[in-house]
Amino acid sequence: MQNHFPKLLLNKNICRRNIRLMNEKAKKNQVDFRPHFKTHQSAMIGKWFRDEGINRITVSSVKMANYFANAGWDDIFIAFPASLSEADNINHLAGTINLSLSIESVQSAIHLDKFLSNPVSVLIKIDTGYHRTGLDPLDISTIQGIVKTIQDSDNLHFLGFYSHSGHTYSSTKTSEIEQIHRQAVQQLNDLRSFFKKDYPRHILSIGDTPACSWVNDFGQVNEIRPGNFVFYDLMQVALGVCSFQDIAVALECPVVAKNANRNELVIHGGAVHLSKDYIRINNEIVYGGVVPITKSGWGMPMENTWVTQVSQEHGIIKTEPSIFNEIQVGETIGILPVHSCLTANLAEHYHTTTGDVISKLRS
Amino acid sequence: MQNHFPKLLLNKNICRRNIRLMNEKAKKNQVDFRPHFKTHQSAMIGKWFRDEGINRITVSSVKMANYFANAGWDDIFIAFPASLSEADNINHLAGTINLSLSIESVQSAIHLDKFLSNPVSVLIKIDTGYHRTGLDPLDISTIQGIVKTIQDSDNLHFLGFYSHSGHTYSSTKTSEIEQIHRQAVQQLNDLRSFFKKDYPRHILSIGDTPACSWVNDFGQVNEIRPGNFVFYDLMQVALGVCSFQDIAVALECPVVAKNANRNELVIHGGAVHLSKDYIRINNEIVYGGVVPITKSGWGMPMENTWVTQVSQEHGIIKTEPSIFNEIQVGETIGILPVHSCLTANLAEHYHTTTGDVISKLRS
Repeated sequence: MQNHFPKLLLNKNICRRNIRLMNEKAKKNQVDFRPHFKTHQSAMIGKWFRDEGINRITVSSVKMANYFANAGWDDIFIAFPASLSEADNINHLAGTINLSLSIESVQSAIHLDKFLSNPVSVLIKIDTGYHRTGLDPLDISTIQGIVKTIQDSDNLHFLGFYSHSGHTYSSTKTSEIEQIHRQAVQQLNDLRSFFKKDYPRHILSIGDTPACSWVNDFGQVNEIRPGNFVFYDLMQVALGVCSFQDIAVALECPVVAKNANRNELVIHGGAVHLSKDYIRINNEIVYGGVVPITKSGWGMPMENTWVTQVSQEHGIIKTEPSIFNEIQVGETIGILPVHSCLTANLAEHYHTTTGDVISKLRS
Repeated sequence: MQNHFPKLLLNKNICRRNIRLMNEKAKKNQVDFRPHFKTHQSAMIGKWFRDEGINRITVSSVKMANYFANAGWDDIFIAFPASLSEADNINHLAGTINLSLSIESVQSAIHLDKFLSNPVSVLIKIDTGYHRTGLDPLDISTIQGIVKTIQDSDNLHFLGFYSHSGHTYSSTKTSEIEQIHRQAVQQLNDLRSFFKKDYPRHILSIGDTPACSWVNDFGQVNEIRPGNFVFYDLMQVALGVCSFQDIAVALECPVVAKNANRNELVIHGGAVHLSKDYIRINNEIVYGGVVPITKSGWGMPMENTWVTQVSQEHGIIKTEPSIFNEIQVGETIGILPVHSCLTANLAEHYHTTTGDVISKLRS
């Protein structure tokens, strides 16, 4: 099979710049940088982080932890409730690397303690308002119970508290991102004050790309774990935390049909390539932005031109007559993903704009 | 890596029954059955079709056509606008199997004619109201132009007209599915009447699972191409064209956390396993139904219990207190997918409820 489309293009310069800038920001703010690798899921891209001096990472599954451990990472935090159904795999990993797990109930702590024969660090997940997972920061007695169970265990070591303020993704302006971030840091700080006496060295870790990109004050936080920033995407542009020029991936798709009555282009590029994540722009559902493919990669987005529908393999681009007339069947076009984590997850590998193929895990 | 979850479970008996029933319906109605294999994407499941005597198939990409050609299928229709960017691959396939392509413009016919050195059959896509791809059935002059270009070519052979009434998926009652189907058949019949004199043997082919499952009259149609029926899913149950007992796949997910204040269970099973396709039930967004895992597979759906949120790896199940209290962290639970095509696409392989692992293409 030659010339297999759609291809996920990766601009290495933009990607490496995103990595460098976030790392510099972490250094400037004196917080540790433990990037989330769920977005790129690639050992090679991991190396670009290592080139910046980063030596600890975050992942969202045991499978991903295993992949990156095999790629030489020896300090990995699995930021997902530790699953007893994977106890054997966790135990194996804990015997080979410095592994940190997430716990949010006494029962999980007891079960893990029973199954583990190798030491792991434990972070307790705190719900700072996203309401997906984590403990209410005001529920001190439950948190105390978990910390105590961890401390009583031979193989579990209490490392600290962590949160993911995923509700920043629902912000309509950057001041809201800032506000959500400040509240999260305040909640974590209050917890620290309470536990400081007994556990003076525990850490606070936070992690969403909107806040880590936008804010300039991490307060008493010790560690940041953003992931999406490595590629950014249309959603982050819409949130106002990056620009189109910061997006490091675009899906190159052949234009396979045109409908002049509706000013619509049909592309080979659908839900199995982009995912069905969408944002609203001017109240319309949008599955991707549209850019021209150029010799060096891709150009700036075409005005009033969006992917407005996706089915399994098809994408529909709605545009203006002037742009419609310029694009011919048989050409390829670039799609800026709405959510690069899900688009990258669907890709078999990355094609750099300089012609290399970069392999990755397929989750 | 052992016990790797989530797992896509497949009930072979239900799946084979779905195949058998659709095949019997096609026979009873004297229409050819050319099932769409984009849903399962598995050579092994393809064999179950072959066991029923089926010898021609539909796919939605050249890559998929290649996979099934390698698995021994020698009569394949790619129901996707033929892409010039894959001309080499198409040419290669056309030299080894009986290949049919989809065309919807004179330009595509001219380009293909130029590139192909092996014969292919061509179906012209007609838009019967879905407005994704295809030609307006009333635009006779354009259609005539394409048919003539095909006939003038040495390697292109005009086979007939085809449609996909994807707008049946927006129906709110089965009578609407029936109505959409009747209109599509009428439009195709009118086209046939017009072209009959010059092309007496051309065929009419239709293809959506809602209509093919529900209607009992295919009129003058020669061929049906449903795909989703092989597994069915929550969307098809909601449309009223199948029952829960017809769904052949469920994602087995570990319960990793519980939140008693919100009656929510957190599972390892998110957008990278289920996709982000959703339906609305009682005006709430739903990403999956929830079933208990049993010794023989899974049971009937739990009442008022739905997957109401998915992020990359997480799923959130909202339920009632009585059900919430019965399910413990560490257990696994089954999720009936909203859209089995996208869920199956994301799976690495199928795990049958009798313990076998079935491989598949990853698109």
